[in-house]
Amino acid sequence: MRASEMIRKKRDGVALSSDELRFLIQGYAEGKIPDYQLSAWAMAVYFQGMDARETADLTLEMVRSGDEVNLSSIRGIKVDKHSTGGVGDTTTLVLGPMVAACGVPVAKLSGRGLGHTGGTVDKLESFPGFSTSLSIDAFIQQVNDIGIALMGQTADLTPADKQLYALRDVTATVDSIPLIASSIMSKKIAAGADAIVLDVKTGAGAFMKTEERARELAEAMVRIGKHVGRRTIAVISDMDQPLGRAVGNALEVREAIETLRGEGPPDLTELCLELGAYMLILGGRADTPEEAKALLRARINDGTALDQLRRFVQAQGGDTRVVDHPDLLPQADEVIAVKAKRSGTVAAMEAETIGLCAMKLGAGRETKESTIDHGVGIELEKKVGDSVQAGDTLATLHIRKGGPVAEVSETLQSAISITDTNVSPPVQIKGVVTPDDV
Amino acid sequence: MRASEMIRKKRDGVALSSDELRFLIQGYAEGKIPDYQLSAWAMAVYFQGMDARETADLTLEMVRSGDEVNLSSIRGIKVDKHSTGGVGDTTTLVLGPMVAACGVPVAKLSGRGLGHTGGTVDKLESFPGFSTSLSIDAFIQQVNDIGIALMGQTADLTPADKQLYALRDVTATVDSIPLIASSIMSKKIAAGADAIVLDVKTGAGAFMKTEERARELAEAMVRIGKHVGRRTIAVISDMDQPLGRAVGNALEVREAIETLRGEGPPDLTELCLELGAYMLILGGRADTPEEAKALLRARINDGTALDQLRRFVQAQGGDTRVVDHPDLLPQADEVIAVKAKRSGTVAAMEAETIGLCAMKLGAGRETKESTIDHGVGIELEKKVGDSVQAGDTLATLHIRKGGPVAEVSETLQSAISITDTNVSPPVQIKGVVTPDDV
Repeated sequence: MRASEMIRKKRDGVALSSDELRFLIQGYAEGKIPDYQLSAWAMAVYFQGMDARETADLTLEMVRSGDEVNLSSIRGIKVDKHSTGGVGDTTTLVLGPMVAACGVPVAKLSGRGLGHTGGTVDKLESFPGFSTSLSIDAFIQQVNDIGIALMGQTADLTPADKQLYALRDVTATVDSIPLIASSIMSKKIAAGADAIVLDVKTGAGAFMKTEERARELAEAMVRIGKHVGRRTIAVISDMDQPLGRAVGNALEVREAIETLRGEGPPDLTELCLELGAYMLILGGRADTPEEAKALLRARINDGTALDQLRRFVQAQGGDTRVVDHPDLLPQADEVIAVKAKRSGTVAAMEAETIGLCAMKLGAGRETKESTIDHGVGIELEKKVGDSVQAGDTLATLHIRKGGPVAEVSETLQSAISITDTNVSPPVQIKGVVTPDDV
Repeated sequence: MRASEMIRKKRDGVALSSDELRFLIQGYAEGKIPDYQLSAWAMAVYFQGMDARETADLTLEMVRSGDEVNLSSIRGIKVDKHSTGGVGDTTTLVLGPMVAACGVPVAKLSGRGLGHTGGTVDKLESFPGFSTSLSIDAFIQQVNDIGIALMGQTADLTPADKQLYALRDVTATVDSIPLIASSIMSKKIAAGADAIVLDVKTGAGAFMKTEERARELAEAMVRIGKHVGRRTIAVISDMDQPLGRAVGNALEVREAIETLRGEGPPDLTELCLELGAYMLILGGRADTPEEAKALLRARINDGTALDQLRRFVQAQGGDTRVVDHPDLLPQADEVIAVKAKRSGTVAAMEAETIGLCAMKLGAGRETKESTIDHGVGIELEKKVGDSVQAGDTLATLHIRKGGPVAEVSETLQSAISITDTNVSPPVQIKGVVTPDDV
């Protein structure tokens, strides 16, 4: 087999066989096939796409390139969740305890990553003392004991995907549905998921700008799940504006606690119930979304969802008092209001720009070496569809002394547009893709 | 400027600016831009193409990456010729003396190369004593003195093209018209040509299998010539079967001598007259193809074309007796006839396979290290459209003692198909593309 022959086939629109994909990806992972052949192949994939079988095979080769986490000693169906990224996405912090409270085991591997705010690991470290450095045995034990655990990702999962992603990043080949789909799915499968719920964001603040592209990606991933025997359901959700009100680490933890108490922002609550419902269905705890949502709401209302968070924080060494007293979370030095300059209705909030503002305040990492400031961030007081009077607070900045107040206030103001006409709040859930749909 | 941004632009069908192409190609030549970005860009070019200005800019950047031969001290318009490759192509050996005899200076840089038979340098070395190791000054002096010189290519011409071609070869990106066109044209321009006549082969034995693709390539090259101020004319010629009758080094020299004497095979003679005519027109020696061909025929008939070969061979140290006594050329040990097994009309002769047979006999180089055997090769006794009786000689093998007679005979027989129906000989000249056509 020769890599150049495989590039040619893909260039000419021919699907590669399983053996050919294995040769290509394992050869790449082992350093036998050079970057310049993979980048040409990736560009050919950009133009010619991949069929369902090919995409599934690519996914499995990514998985095979590294460690695979074995969660078989955890009782029950392990359902993982993945969001395709966005701004102010607090869903994991809410879903974990909520779903665990309904009896679906939550065994979550998570990272820090670059971005507007920290990763889930960073956010949880807002609880003083919270540690994600668990051994795999302790991790499994904890899920069996209390139903939930989260550990920092230490295993070498899907190294071929990491390598290929870095290459795609510098060769304009990131934006290919089958390559994105296989990258995401390979990580979930390597992390030991039996079933997967996907939250595919769409809108100005998401990687998939249009609903059509988001649906394509959702379908590609559900199709992979079908091919490799991991039941997968994808929810397509709005990311035209940030999700919820908080953009920042401790701020998002506080928002998660409020949501688990039944007092969260409506959009975040709605999305968590939707995603949670499909996690319960895949986990065998409910048959319909309605039944599942009723169960989730009951666990919020009777306090067991919040209890589950408390036990989770305690098991991993965190200060549980925070759950009832969120003021104990890391705080910024100053809270500064950004006010509306005119009256009207909020027409748009540029999620991307707002995320970058939070990063500028110190909430996220620009490079691997950046340090996260857990206390800083942005709280949105208004959202799209809200009416405002000139002088109303649009958002509050949680900021360090000497932080870039003027710059961030101005950017934030320009990111929030106000019109005279009526604007409806966006529909949060745009659609659902199940295995029956693909 | 960032290379990834340029790949993205090309991927999206946007033309790169002159500055961007300079950044990309010079950066690549200097090792600042890695192979993996150029291969992704080349694949994007494969799918999106390049416009005329872009292709011309790419060509000039290839030229700028290395040495440029300065032929300005040669009097007259230096017209170079390039054939896109084929089997048994003896045109350069015929055209050089013929065109020089009409007063157009022939200053030819040539290589050895890989292939079915040797390059022009190898073929000329069939003349005992012939040397192509000239200094550039001696080379120029010889053209001014006797009208013709040929030297082995020693200057570092278009290194960026060499580098990119090697990369394209292993990334399935060879087959792109603008990349092929700029590669060919850059070499001719760097070699100092004022004007260029191209012989674009088409058919089963050519790189361009269809006439349509050959015309596309011809047009792309003539368009480059127009953009960079080198008048270029392309002839599209048949390569469904080998050109002429000889495939081998000394055999082709003998055939060239016969053609210069007016006794060459009709297809080779026709093509040489056509290409020579446009060389004379571009060289300012004739106004119309008819006038030019009449001049060329006159130089053949009055013996000055052959005289010109004699002076050429003498000037470069070769044994001129060979011109009148071709039997002094290197000879094989045995001449073996391959005979027709049935009667009928020759319907097809697979040029590619026949070329490989010649290589197997030792006429060409499989690797850079291979040694050429000047005496061996194949002579075709029949060509497409000829009628044959069972037992007639189809071809003769010029072979060394112990050479692969049985294997080559059998392959050759399978490469020549004979039918019961009438078959017309192929049309040699399929078309001409001039600057007015693009």
